[in-house]
Order: sequence, then C-alpha cells, then structure tokens
Amino acid sequence: MSVEEVKKNRAALEFSRENLESVLKRRFFYAPAFELYGGVSGLYDYGPPGCAFQANIIDVWRKHFILEEDMLEVDCTMLTPYEVLKTSGHVDKFSDWMCRDLKTGEIFRADHLVEEVLEARLKGDKEARGLVKDANADAQEDADKKKRKKKVKEIKAVKLEDEVVKEYEEILAKIDGYSGEELGELMVKYKIGNPTTGETLEAPRAFNLMFETAIGPSNQLKGYLRPETAQGQFLNFNKLLEFNNGKTPFASASIGKSFRNEISPRSGLLRVREFLMAEIEHFVDPENKKHPRFSEVEGIKLKFLPRDVQQAGSTVPLETTVGDAVKSKMVDNETLGYFIARIYLFLITIGVDPNRLRFRQHMANEMAHYAADCWDAELQTSYGWIECVGCADRSAYDLTVHSNKTKEKLVVRQKLDEPIQVTKWEIELTKKLFGPKFRKDAPKVEAYLLGLSQEELAAKADQLKSEGKIVFNVEGIEGDIELDDKFVSIEKKTKTEHVREFVPNVIEPSFGIGRIIYSIFEHSFWSRPEDSARAVLSFPPLVAPTKVLLVPLSNHQDLVKVTADVSRIFRKEKIPFKVDDSGVSIGKRYARNDELGTPFGVTIDFESAKDGTVTLRERDSTKQVRGAVEDIIKAIRDITYNGASWEEGTKTLEPFVTQSE
Amino acid sequence: MSVEEVKKNRAALEFSRENLESVLKRRFFYAPAFELYGGVSGLYDYGPPGCAFQANIIDVWRKHFILEEDMLEVDCTMLTPYEVLKTSGHVDKFSDWMCRDLKTGEIFRADHLVEEVLEARLKGDKEARGLVKDANADAQEDADKKKRKKKVKEIKAVKLEDEVVKEYEEILAKIDGYSGEELGELMVKYKIGNPTTGETLEAPRAFNLMFETAIGPSNQLKGYLRPETAQGQFLNFNKLLEFNNGKTPFASASIGKSFRNEISPRSGLLRVREFLMAEIEHFVDPENKKHPRFSEVEGIKLKFLPRDVQQAGSTVPLETTVGDAVKSKMVDNETLGYFIARIYLFLITIGVDPNRLRFRQHMANEMAHYAADCWDAELQTSYGWIECVGCADRSAYDLTVHSNKTKEKLVVRQKLDEPIQVTKWEIELTKKLFGPKFRKDAPKVEAYLLGLSQEELAAKADQLKSEGKIVFNVEGIEGDIELDDKFVSIEKKTKTEHVREFVPNVIEPSFGIGRIIYSIFEHSFWSRPEDSARAVLSFPPLVAPTKVLLVPLSNHQDLVKVTADVSRIFRKEKIPFKVDDSGVSIGKRYARNDELGTPFGVTIDFESAKDGTVTLRERDSTKQVRGAVEDIIKAIRDITYNGASWEEGTKTLEPFVTQSE
Repeated sequence: MSVEEVKKNRAALEFSRENLESVLKRRFFYAPAFELYGGVSGLYDYGPPGCAFQANIIDVWRKHFILEEDMLEVDCTMLTPYEVLKTSGHVDKFSDWMCRDLKTGEIFRADHLVEEVLEARLKGDKEARGLVKDANADAQEDADKKKRKKKVKEIKAVKLEDEVVKEYEEILAKIDGYSGEELGELMVKYKIGNPTTGETLEAPRAFNLMFETAIGPSNQLKGYLRPETAQGQFLNFNKLLEFNNGKTPFASASIGKSFRNEISPRSGLLRVREFLMAEIEHFVDPENKKHPRFSEVEGIKLKFLPRDVQQAGSTVPLETTVGDAVKSKMVDNETLGYFIARIYLFLITIGVDPNRLRFRQHMANEMAHYAADCWDAELQTSYGWIECVGCADRSAYDLTVHSNKTKEKLVVRQKLDEPIQVTKWEIELTKKLFGPKFRKDAPKVEAYLLGLSQEELAAKADQLKSEGKIVFNVEGIEGDIELDDKFVSIEKKTKTEHVREFVPNVIEPSFGIGRIIYSIFEHSFWSRPEDSARAVLSFPPLVAPTKVLLVPLSNHQDLVKVTADVSRIFRKEKIPFKVDDSGVSIGKRYARNDELGTPFGVTIDFESAKDGTVTLRERDSTKQVRGAVEDIIKAIRDITYNGASWEEGTKTLEPFVTQSE
Repeated sequence: MSVEEVKKNRAALEFSRENLESVLKRRFFYAPAFELYGGVSGLYDYGPPGCAFQANIIDVWRKHFILEEDMLEVDCTMLTPYEVLKTSGHVDKFSDWMCRDLKTGEIFRADHLVEEVLEARLKGDKEARGLVKDANADAQEDADKKKRKKKVKEIKAVKLEDEVVKEYEEILAKIDGYSGEELGELMVKYKIGNPTTGETLEAPRAFNLMFETAIGPSNQLKGYLRPETAQGQFLNFNKLLEFNNGKTPFASASIGKSFRNEISPRSGLLRVREFLMAEIEHFVDPENKKHPRFSEVEGIKLKFLPRDVQQAGSTVPLETTVGDAVKSKMVDNETLGYFIARIYLFLITIGVDPNRLRFRQHMANEMAHYAADCWDAELQTSYGWIECVGCADRSAYDLTVHSNKTKEKLVVRQKLDEPIQVTKWEIELTKKLFGPKFRKDAPKVEAYLLGLSQEELAAKADQLKSEGKIVFNVEGIEGDIELDDKFVSIEKKTKTEHVREFVPNVIEPSFGIGRIIYSIFEHSFWSRPEDSARAVLSFPPLVAPTKVLLVPLSNHQDLVKVTADVSRIFRKEKIPFKVDDSGVSIGKRYARNDELGTPFGVTIDFESAKDGTVTLRERDSTKQVRGAVEDIIKAIRDITYNGASWEEGTKTLEPFVTQSE
C-alpha cells in the first residue's frame, strides 16, 4: 500500500468520537480519576499507553526547545504563598463568575448560563418561525457535541421580536468579554434565572480558580496551588541571569503540573482541574526583539487568524510565511514569529495534522491580565478549534510588579560600547533633620521619598517650586506630611552612564500538554475502510507509546526461545517493545496493537528459529518486509529516531507477502 | 592520572558541607523557593543544573525499572478526595504530634521537643560531672550538624541522679515509637515545657500532615494533596490487571510530586514539603513470591542491618549476598530480595558510593500504618544515615480496604490447571419476606447480609443454630434487627472451582528523588588537594547535567566559526553541551565546570581551525587526548551512554599533554 493509498484509507470513513473514546477507554489511555469512588469531575489518570505517549511528547519537547535552544530549565514548587500570587494579580483577577440558586444550592457559571439560555430562546424562536423542526432535539445535539449537560431542559417554541433576536445575537458574539456586573445586568434585563425552576439567582460573584491551602500548622501561611509555572521562573530571574553570565536574550523553561479549580468542568481532557504544562519564558531586550535564528524559519508558511480578520467577522485564515507576517507587522516582532514557527514544527513532529492547525490572535478583551499580545496555536477537533499553545507577550509586567513589591531590582545590566549622557530627576534628603522630626518613622519617610519614580519626582519638583513644599502620605503614618526645601531638594541632573539598565520583556510560549494529546488522538484516529471496528491510532513512531509488538506465531518451545532472545536484544537496545504471546490469532493481535498505535510488528515464526530472520510489519500500510533481527532493528531505529521514511529505512530488506491481516 | 590516583585525590581533603553548599548555591543547583519574598521553609526550586540532573536520574530510573521490567506506568492526579484517604488510613494516621504554647503561639513538634530537652539535660549533667567542658558549645555543634535551630537556648550544668540519666537514655533510644498520649505523659512527668520560657504547653495534638483543599466551588468536596503516589495505582488496579491480560505478577509505576505539610521542616533537601517520588507497586501472588529473574541478582553482596541486629543495639551491618539473605529468611522472599538488589544497582549507576549505602530493616514500631515489612536503602551523609528508598511489603492492605469500602472486587482470577473442591459458608435469603418486613430498608439489610465475611458467617451460623435467630445492626437503621431461619439459612457447602481468586500482595519500592540527589551531591563532592577552593562534583557522565563544555581558546574569528560548526554537530547528536566563550582563562573555565560536574571539556584551538582536531579533557583526572571531532564525539558517546571507561573509550585517540590546569 502506497503512502497515497494509506492517505485515502485514512479518510475513507467518517470520524466518530464515540469509536475513539471507546478505544481510548478500552486500551486505558486515560480514565476518570477515582472512578472506583464515583470519580471527581475534571480529574483524569493516564494509563500505561497515555502515560508513555505523554512522556515521549515531553521528551521531544525537551530536545526541541530546551536542548536545541540552550534554555535554562527550572523546576519550581507548585505550592505558592499568597503574597506572590497577590502581586502577580492572580488573587484578584484569576476568577470566573458564578451565581448560586439560594433555594436549591445549585451553582452556575454565569457566562455559560447566559449563553445557553439565550441560545435556547433563539432555538425556540426558530421553531416558532418554522425554521427548525425540533428545537429540543437540536439543543441536545449541540450539548452532546460540546459534551456538556443541557442546562435548559425544555425549550418552548416562542417567537421573539426581531429586535430581541438581534440583541441576543449581539450578546452571544461578545459573551467572553463581559464583566461580572455586566453579566448580572443581562440576567436581570432578560430575566435569566435557574433554567429548571425559573427562580431568580444570586448576582454573579467572582470565584477564584486557584486551589487554596494552608502551609504549616495552624494556618500560619495561606497558599495556593500555582495556576501556571511562570511565576517560579520570574522569581528566579536574577539567579538565572547570573547563571547565564549576565547575558540576554535567554530563555528559561519549566515542565510541571498546574491547577485550575473549574466551577463545573466538562469536555473530557480539554478542561481539567490538574494539568501538565510546559512553559518557556524568553527574556528579551524591549528595544531589540530580533532573533538570531529567525532566518532558519522565515520561509515556513502558516495559517494566521489575526485580530482584524476576526473583527470583520471572518474565520478564514491568512496563509503566509512567518517572514512576511513579521515584515507586515501582523506578528509584532521576530522573536514572537520565531517561536510561532518553532511551535508549529514541534506540533507537526509529534503528530498534529498541519491542516487542522491555525494561529489565532487574541482579541483585546480576551487576553489574560498580564498579556500585551497573544497568539494561540489552535487545533481543530470535534469540539471545535481548541487553544493548545499560547504564545503571549507579557511585556515587562511580571518582573515589574514583583520588583515593586519586594524592592529587589529585576533588571539586565548591559555594558555600553559608548557611554551615554542621561538626564534624570534626583532627590536629595537632609537626613539629619529627618530623625528629630519623624523619630521612629524617619526610615519609612526616607524610603518613600527615595522610591519615587521619575514621573512622581517631576511632579514633586513642580510642587516644591510653586508651593515651596511637598505634601504626601506614607502608608502607616497618619495625616499629610509636609516638607520644605530645607528637607529635600529635587533637581534634574545629567550624568554619564556606562551601563544601560533595563527590565526585559517576556515572550511566553505556553503548552497545555493534555489538550495537545487529546487533539493528536483525534488527528491520528481512523478505521480501516473494510471494517469500521478495526481502529488505528497512527502516531508518529517517535512518540508512539510502544515502538514494537513482538508476536511469536505459536507457543512452541522453539519460538519461546527465539522470542526471549529477540526480547533481550530489544531491551539492550532500549527500544520500547511488548511481547504478545496470547493464544489469539496474529490478525487479532495486530488489530489490538493498531488500537494502541504501535507502529511496528515483528513476527517470529519457525523460519526465525532456523535462520534468525523475522518479519517486520508497518501499522498504517500493513506492508511487511523480512530480514535478520539486527537489520530489522536498524530499520526500526532509523525510522523511529532518525527520521527515515519506511521506504528509506527498509530498502535493503526483502518484501514479504502474507495472506493474512 | 590513574584511577587510583584520582581515588587518592578525592579522599585527600576532608569533606566540608559548607563548601558543598556554597558551590550548590553559586551554581544554582537549587535554591529556597520564593527567596525574593523571604522564602517558605521546606520548599525548594531546582535551577538548571539541578533540574537537568533530576531529569537524567528520572530517565535512568524509567529505563532501569519501567522499560527493563515492562512495568505499567501511570500518571494519576495529586488532588485526591477525602474519601479515598480516609479509607487508606491517611486521614486518621498520617500525622505528627504537635504542642502549642498558648501564651506565645509557638508550635513544637512533640517528639523533637522531648528529644532535645532531654539531650540538653544530659549534656548539662555531663558538664556538671566534668565530662564535657562546655555543654552549650557542644549542643550548638550538634544543632549545626543537624542544621536545626537550637530550641534549648541555654543549658545549665545540673547534675542528675544516676537513675534519671538511665531513664532519659532509655526514652531517647525509643523516641520514634511514642504515641501522642505517651509523649504528653513524658512532658508532664519530666516537666518539659517551652524551653525558652519554661511555660507549660498544651498536651500534644495530632497534626495531619496532608495539605487540605476544596475541590469545586463552595467547598463542595474536601480534598488533599496526595501524600504518596501509591493510592492512584491501587485505585486503578482492575484496569491495570486487564491491560496486562489478567496476568500476575506485574508492576505499576508512577513518577510525580507528593506533599507533606511538615510542622517545621529543616535539613535542606532532606525534609521538604513538596517532593518528587518514583514509586513501584509490584502485585504478586501471596502464595508465590518467587521472582523469575532472581538468579540474575542473587550473587550481589550488600550491607544489611536487620531488625535483630538493631535490637541488640548494634549498627554493624551484615555483609552477605542477596541469595543468602533470602535463603536465611532474613529477607522474607525472592521478590523483596530482587527489588533490594535492583535498587542497589540503580543507586550505584547514578553515582551513590556503595560504601555509604546500607539496607536497614524497619523496627516494628516505626513502620507506616500499611506496612507488613520494610527495608530502607539508607545513604550516609553529613546528616547521618538517611532513608532514601523504602522497600515495603504492604501485603493486601490497600486493595482490601478500598474493596471493602467501595464494594468493588479488587482480585486476580487465576484459571486452575486442576479444578479444586472448596468448602465455604453460604447464606441464602428468603427475599420475598424482606420487602414486607423492612420496606424501603430491605435492600440495605440484604446488602449487609450478603457482604458478610466467612468468619462472620461462621459466627452467625452458630448463633442461628443455638438461639434460633441472628441479631445484628445495620448502619442507618435504628435498633437491633432479629431474623429467624424463615428469613435466612447459613450453611457450609462444598463446590468445585475452576478459578482461584485472590487479593495480591504488594511489594513497594518507593524512591525519594530529592534525598537521593542530595546524597549524591555529598558522595560526588571533593576538592583538588592542591587547592581546596577548586571543587569538583564527580557525577557519572550518564547523569551529569551537561556532558560537554565547549571551550574556544580565544574569540578569534576562525575559532568562532569552528565553535559554531562543532556546536551544530553536538546539537544534531543530541549530546547536552554548553559553550563557554567568556574571556576568562581556560583554567578558570574548566574550574567553573568542574563545579557543575561536567565530565568532558572540548577545547578548540588554532590547530582545530586547520585540521579539524580538538582536545578532550576528563574532569576527574584532568587527562587529555586529541582527535578528529567525530572520533571525540564517539568517545564521549561510548563513555557516557554505553558504559565504556575512559581508557576503553579513548584508546584510539592521541594522548595530549598541556602545561596548564
């Protein structure tokens, strides 16, 4: 079977999520965690094939990014004290809006509720207008597709005013952008309550999505489970910079679990409460975001969905090269463009279908609180387009807030080739007067004044000049404080500087490994045209959980010995393999392993016992070749790890024809 | 320098923990987490070299155990609902005893407090008797050694009665075995209060060491961060067994973070609140704990410290082979012995000094609540002997409690070659009488009766015979329930069974990766005899964070080009390397990398630009050889990944002599 025929075969039958899920469950790729105890929504365990697949993807990630780009990997704790996440903004802003039914105790996520109720009313309107036959059946289909429970149990066929239809449609288009207050107003205006009882709900309240805990005995220290790995990397910035001999740009990277206490998770692996992330923080000079290796990727063509295309209401992507995307300023700079291309190359390597991958720019109202710009790698699945990798420009946000809070500088010091003249406001204090005036508060007042920014100093200088004094407040000291020019002088001074000091900007590619894994499941899954029950997961050999299935033709003593010998060689060569010596037919054993995505089968028969040759079978084409064990292993190694195609890898081996399969 | 000379050099200067810690900090192997915010005790971040070292150790672990033994790796969630850990016993038993000073709010761990106060009094007694000069200095030294704050600030030289000295010593010998109540009694009897103020403390209270959190909004579901990875593996037992085609023995394995909310952690990486574990659960027939590969390890000689030796007050280990240890029943069975040997081989491979490794059997009173027997691999460090790997026999404890709680069978079904006759108690219910008598409670009563164990059935049968009725209580139904033989019959019946059903036992090797890493730091650290400031970390190349340092002799244009070319080859070969093109001398650059444990240095000089040869330097001996880049890479690969020695790996290369170093 040729590559073209395999392609045709893969597309022959329509994708069925039901079939895929049944295979994933049967082969224990993953399962709901704590199923024995009834399960906990949003928590999943990976079984052996899922776990090996995940480990292989992480291994490729480490080589593709960390090793290839000489990144500095760190492993930081998940437990994070309150203060850090207060500063980063997560305590105040990392939340969803929930509203409670005070009678039944039910809890709804406000945006989802408004969305579903308005959608249901629009469906009812369509039925009343005779545009759909059965609004309820339609809604059920929608819910199944999104894998969620229908909140609106029964839709009534009620015609709406044309104006109201238009209002509803406008609200739905902007549903991700409303604040809690706005959602509450919508609920009042459009009488949106508990869909089952009609009862009015409590106004939306912010529900923080971080898991809270106490560190140490007796609640001494409030803490959270981290919502991202990024903060640990920012906090170690000075150590990382020093490790890198003070040079920028450089990147740190981290692989680990993060947590999000979803209000009511759904959609399987796509929305979970505990998930594996791989994040890169690339620290770069804000005045120079060029990338030295940009030329290596500028020719790569990608599908972009920029902000203006979306604003025009279109979802047709623009196909263009990364080079042109940066040249036209659609993508802001080379570094951002470089990482978008590298993300693409990574995803393709591990089995993502390039035709179902696009880069979508975030709209202004959907960006996280720290982001200045963001492009998502989205993968198309039966749930729609799913955000799997974010590539955000966090600007200098995080380093700045942590530095302001802790009063520790988080900056790069760059020796200048030519010294420069810098004019700056400077404040001088007549310290001997501070002690007598402020007593124990003197250090506080001094610290406040010395901590003023350039803008603040300029304003204070004005005040000092016009009013002859400055007036200000210091936290912890009651009342206004007034100081005249006997206490302070504020003047503009010009100095020669030999070192430039700057807070680097951060470009952050952030990977949701679980979402990527699920998308690859969908992209890899197909059934053989001759029998829809014969499912195949066509993972690239490099990331397939197991590389080889060893299949002795029978349990005859001679074959048992050969199987043991061949196993020993595979083990020594560290190629992940499994033996299947169960009694069932060869065909059944291969079928089982097609479901596990194992790319190669090695059959041991009576010839093998005589001359040491074995048969090698390729999963997708079911093609077979025969040769000595050593040559077969070389072929497997070349195809799996060295990027050879089946044709290249097996060109010295004999074709082998069999009647079975 | 020969292997012998290197050995001599490594032992020349005395080990200094201070020097080691300064290197680990300077090179960012690890650092206190959130240091910018003042730090949180018991939490540490790994910097780039620590993180790479950890990743390499995990990689070896995966190959040594999972791949080599065909184990089933799973990745389960850390968030765990209350019910699961209640059943496993952790909610009730996973705790330390703390006591609080109600006046100052200070919290003490009870066993540590009793220990330190009694030790201090014994020291004071010795000073009073003229046996030590300065008890306070002595105590300070002790505290420094254990890296803890001294709780007893000032020791008074007070002579104790001989009898009291004996009592104190006996208590200290058993300090790990006391219950909270007993610790409370000791504190009252010996007037142990707050060491600073003398104030009486609250009686010891159990402090559960699990981090608690709420899953979902509004505290719907109480949960914990897992204290071990094991429970996730047990809960997936049925799925794993099915994945393994129903066959035993088999093992599952898991690598991931676990958590322990220590009362007041100390001792750096040795006692932390968040830590990486690698755990294996080997499920085995309780009636057959033989291991098919035992013969491969039975000749390995190890140091054992069994229970009886410890009871006799000795710490001199018994050196014997694993085969003999099992034969003599010192180690209970082959499977336990097999894993002890495999643990040994793993530890040696990653750089543990075999002379500072022993296997100590747990005393009955120190075992975890689930363990039937336990051997620890202990590594000797400057903190004493540290438990780094536990190898416990958890018997059928966990599967049994989860099965009892959830009413799901967690058993192996083994087809018998010959059917057997089994005699068992059987209960039969006259169901039509249950409905009228118990109404809505009927299913509860039936479930209770059908769930009785063989022992319980025997007792009930007795009662039915002697009293003509059975009397029992069912949870949720008030009052005694009485049933006569119209309702139930309980009889012994003999049946032919073709399948044997059993709950497997579990052998659990459990690795604390952080503790192993710290111990290897100590075992690998030395300073060159000629200069104690020139520190070396002699990691085995296989696990060293970076394998090669590329050192261009100067920043001359020609060398920059060669460096770029050689870098490209290393990158393609996926050998982790770093370039050091800083201006400092070659010797300084090598010294820096000796501290990072980088085993190889490749120097690029002007010859390289002409003929493509480079110099290869070995870290420990500082020996050098020269050859073509390809040959040098082959040598690096053979020594790092294929187990070749330096002599074997470089035998075709030219020795190279240089004046520097």
